[in-house]
Amino acid sequence: MELLDALQWRYASKKMNGQKVPEEKIGRILEAIRLAPSSMGLQPYTVLVISDEELKKQILPIANNQQQVVDASHLLVFAAWDNITPEQVDDYIHLMAETRNVTEESLAQFKAALLRIAGRTPEENFQWTARQSYIAFATAIAAAAEEQVDATPMEGFNNAALDELLNLKAKGLRSVTLLPLGYRDTENDWLAKSPKVRREKEKLFLIR
Amino acid sequence: MELLDALQWRYASKKMNGQKVPEEKIGRILEAIRLAPSSMGLQPYTVLVISDEELKKQILPIANNQQQVVDASHLLVFAAWDNITPEQVDDYIHLMAETRNVTEESLAQFKAALLRIAGRTPEENFQWTARQSYIAFATAIAAAAEEQVDATPMEGFNNAALDELLNLKAKGLRSVTLLPLGYRDTENDWLAKSPKVRREKEKLFLIR
Repeated sequence: MELLDALQWRYASKKMNGQKVPEEKIGRILEAIRLAPSSMGLQPYTVLVISDEELKKQILPIANNQQQVVDASHLLVFAAWDNITPEQVDDYIHLMAETRNVTEESLAQFKAALLRIAGRTPEENFQWTARQSYIAFATAIAAAAEEQVDATPMEGFNNAALDELLNLKAKGLRSVTLLPLGYRDTENDWLAKSPKVRREKEKLFLIR
Repeated sequence: MELLDALQWRYASKKMNGQKVPEEKIGRILEAIRLAPSSMGLQPYTVLVISDEELKKQILPIANNQQQVVDASHLLVFAAWDNITPEQVDDYIHLMAETRNVTEESLAQFKAALLRIAGRTPEENFQWTARQSYIAFATAIAAAAEEQVDATPMEGFNNAALDELLNLKAKGLRSVTLLPLGYRDTENDWLAKSPKVRREKEKLFLIR
């Protein structure tokens, strides 16, 4: 499916039907997330892929009882690094040297730039890592649509409570967004047949 | 082109060749941006589409002299609303009522939720509108890749200077990201033949 058709097809399903998404489709959505760009290529986030029914039930009240959390096949949690540590920069430089078959010394300038970024306050770093996670999040939404898998982007949940439940702090992570993946229950989803609301291009774009 | 192939094909081109991107391709990339999701569907951003050579030259020093700004065919500037005003909420409610052929009264609860969001501080609102603009930004990157158009995501520029040059403050906007669109100069782009560096899926994902 072409991206534009996929974006037209998708919407934020308000009622999912509980049907499971085949693992090969989940695999392709995760691969799109893995390939998503990020500033400096750092990928400063982890994505939790939750299909455990019990865990989804525990998340439900934390997510304002939005039923897609439990009716989804898989629930993705985009969790951004709560800071950037020199160890994380080291790991990335190792990976880059290995992948590109170059010495770490040849990456010294790039590493210094990363360490300068890491030197900001943890809160500044988190605001930045959270923005990067939105790129992965948006890429996942597009990938799901291309697979004809419904996805309901969610920001409305209790981040602190979810971090606690998933033990994210100990992992150096903070939850940012949720993305339930599943299939729309067209009969019972009040939004399923509503036309998409978007500003006209004359209003959204400024041509110079 | 399938999304996964497009994401494999793309990279952040460091040297573009000045070739123009056909308007129909630009049109499809802009349409993908227009269809991109956002929280509450508010689309709290404007995207500037700059092909004027003189203006691109003026932006060059503001963007740390990253040559893609002038070698690109079109430069997109993602600018988020610097606040959310009751007037903007009204406009959106009008648009929704018109698009879905419902009364504005039937949207009262939704409108109240939007006004509660708008009631936060301007800085909180901007942090939120900026995150929404990253969804549109990432969708543009995917759409460009699918069109085999190169795109170099950029955060590294002087936001205040660009806002000044483009008179964004008067428009209630603040620049967030840049996306030059054009074609890679494979011969002269040091990054063109480098393998993509990405964490292994075992490290990027946590399966629960």
